[in-house]
Amino acid sequence: MEIVVLKFGGTSVGTIEKIKKVAEIISIYRKKKYKVIVVSSAMSGVTNELVKKSRQISENFSEAEYDSLVSSGEQVSCSLIAGRLIHKGFKSRSWLAWQIPILTKGIHKNSRIYQINKKKIIQYLNQGGIPVITGFQGINEKDRLTTIGRGGSDASAIMLAKFFNAKRCIIYTDVEGVYTTDPNKLKKAKKIKVISYEEMLEMASLGAKVMQPVSIQDARLNRIDIEVKSSFINKPGTTITKRSNIINNKIITGISSTHNDAKVTLVGVKDKPGVAATIFKPLSKNLINVDMVVQNISPNGKETDLTFTIKSEDLSKTQKILKENTSINYRKLLFEKGVSKISIIGVGMITTPGVTYRMFQTLANKKINIQVISTSEIKISVLINKKNSKEALAALHKEFKLDK
Amino acid sequence: MEIVVLKFGGTSVGTIEKIKKVAEIISIYRKKKYKVIVVSSAMSGVTNELVKKSRQISENFSEAEYDSLVSSGEQVSCSLIAGRLIHKGFKSRSWLAWQIPILTKGIHKNSRIYQINKKKIIQYLNQGGIPVITGFQGINEKDRLTTIGRGGSDASAIMLAKFFNAKRCIIYTDVEGVYTTDPNKLKKAKKIKVISYEEMLEMASLGAKVMQPVSIQDARLNRIDIEVKSSFINKPGTTITKRSNIINNKIITGISSTHNDAKVTLVGVKDKPGVAATIFKPLSKNLINVDMVVQNISPNGKETDLTFTIKSEDLSKTQKILKENTSINYRKLLFEKGVSKISIIGVGMITTPGVTYRMFQTLANKKINIQVISTSEIKISVLINKKNSKEALAALHKEFKLDK
Repeated sequence: MEIVVLKFGGTSVGTIEKIKKVAEIISIYRKKKYKVIVVSSAMSGVTNELVKKSRQISENFSEAEYDSLVSSGEQVSCSLIAGRLIHKGFKSRSWLAWQIPILTKGIHKNSRIYQINKKKIIQYLNQGGIPVITGFQGINEKDRLTTIGRGGSDASAIMLAKFFNAKRCIIYTDVEGVYTTDPNKLKKAKKIKVISYEEMLEMASLGAKVMQPVSIQDARLNRIDIEVKSSFINKPGTTITKRSNIINNKIITGISSTHNDAKVTLVGVKDKPGVAATIFKPLSKNLINVDMVVQNISPNGKETDLTFTIKSEDLSKTQKILKENTSINYRKLLFEKGVSKISIIGVGMITTPGVTYRMFQTLANKKINIQVISTSEIKISVLINKKNSKEALAALHKEFKLDK
Repeated sequence: MEIVVLKFGGTSVGTIEKIKKVAEIISIYRKKKYKVIVVSSAMSGVTNELVKKSRQISENFSEAEYDSLVSSGEQVSCSLIAGRLIHKGFKSRSWLAWQIPILTKGIHKNSRIYQINKKKIIQYLNQGGIPVITGFQGINEKDRLTTIGRGGSDASAIMLAKFFNAKRCIIYTDVEGVYTTDPNKLKKAKKIKVISYEEMLEMASLGAKVMQPVSIQDARLNRIDIEVKSSFINKPGTTITKRSNIINNKIITGISSTHNDAKVTLVGVKDKPGVAATIFKPLSKNLINVDMVVQNISPNGKETDLTFTIKSEDLSKTQKILKENTSINYRKLLFEKGVSKISIIGVGMITTPGVTYRMFQTLANKKINIQVISTSEIKISVLINKKNSKEALAALHKEFKLDK
């Protein structure tokens, strides 16, 4: 019998009724003669409520106690799921991280799973049991509870799939999967059946709602196929896998867009080592998130222009920081609000020439001006005026046959 | 340095503000150079909320999962207390039952602590740390979480005091201590400074609000002195100790009274073995709580009269059961609602003759008729008409000098 790991997110176990639904889903896999390992997050809202309490106790709440505090949420949800499975006549029990144990390394609040003791769980599976394992938590070498960062139950599921050599790892959540673009921005957006880890990582703006990039990276490193699907609707979701598994005639897998960005250009920056670091260090310190960074070669070998994008709301703060920082040498500072970043993502572009041209031609046909261009191996991003973003998205979605 | 065990009940840690207050109390003992072991219940309401969830999952919720579920409450409160102590500059941490470990025997939901591993806690105390230990929970031989029954954090505190040979064990709660009688029934009720385990056990109706009888019995068997006091008001509470520690010129320690009882008498019951069992078995099965039972000797060696009291609301059910049960032979069945049981309790009566007489004379002076009498070594109970109960209580409270 093959092992399947089923992971349920906070919204999937958010109420008693939803937990009953989750037990239904689990029982279907069990009846299909899989050995089922269940991993669960805390019921939605519970972790936030506990975090709030910790802040009320101290602005500087102990990180070790934080881990012990918040990991109680998974203890509750797993007991309830196991209780429901027992009620339905299955052999089941909750397994807390320390009972297995799941061993982690690193600092509190941000530990990483490095070892899962398989013995007890294998024995339990062989007895026909359904183990319901607390996600998000582990223990360290001092036998203290640790957590593996917010959204970390996905990482738990992936590591369980790895250690138990699971055939499938299914992440149940409140979305149906990953879409070709944000369905709120374009009605023609379609659910993607299969996507590569790399594409998923590049589609942060589309994918982050589904899985944290760190978990996708975990899956990629451990070559675990993941299926993301809704626990509320019985439909196939999106499978995230390695490139070589994907037989796909589409060149582009998805299109992401931002709406409310600002563009900053430093004209005539001295072209010498350490300049970029000098510029970005104070921004990073002030928690300003820099997205796209573009610097062209220096035509005269002395000066260059550097452009980056930030969220529009950070613009005035950024202006202040750059103007006050006298260690940065440049000739002119340009700012522009209201820009939109459109990115096309797809592993297909590696083997297909002319994708860049097709993207630019599509925008040119709509008379949309491209301000800045940046490309990676599987992604092309352009900055355009935000008033054109909707039109650009629709035109590119159609051009690369994502409507179908 | 001597060890003191401080136990905080659910209402004492019911809100963030109360947890901050609890940390204040702990820090006072720590500054007095005690080694402090803290034990806490879950925040009030939390356990009930979890129990409710378990019932919604299944009417017959797994008892092992119940223990894992509800013990999460203590994990939360202990992390918050430890977090607050750290915030105040103390070395502190939460200790979960499995981390110590606290070993229990018996069935889930109703286990008993039989061993506490002292090593880690002693080491931690010697390093100047304040351990905050989860009450109510333990682990069994299979490394599964267990709980020691509702209100079981008191039992945890007592067993910790025993294993660590604590100088003091203080139970912080929402009442100021044990009173000579219910202050709601008699304004002149006074807080008792010292009371014996046995008196406390006999005063169930007064003491149950303070501590579960099972915990008092634990303390008695292990000879642990307990001080019960309020975490909200800084006043001495009530100390529960062994009789030989009590120097007391009062003969009676307290008076308890019930208000809404019914009296049932079976007249002319056959005086042979097994009769009482035949009568009470069906009542027990129907969850009818029988309080006082009185049977006099059989004057003719053949027949006797048997009287017992129940809650008034159980009367009609009891009548039905007795009438339908044809295996009980009696001549007549008498019922009376509206009786009150008044009990005087005190170890002093063992060595003081005439207590019974003084009680009866006091009631006679008030022209209060005594219907039934029952006595134990340290308790005398009488049944009277409930319309006289208030007057009887006041008169006896005065007679035995409890007003002062």
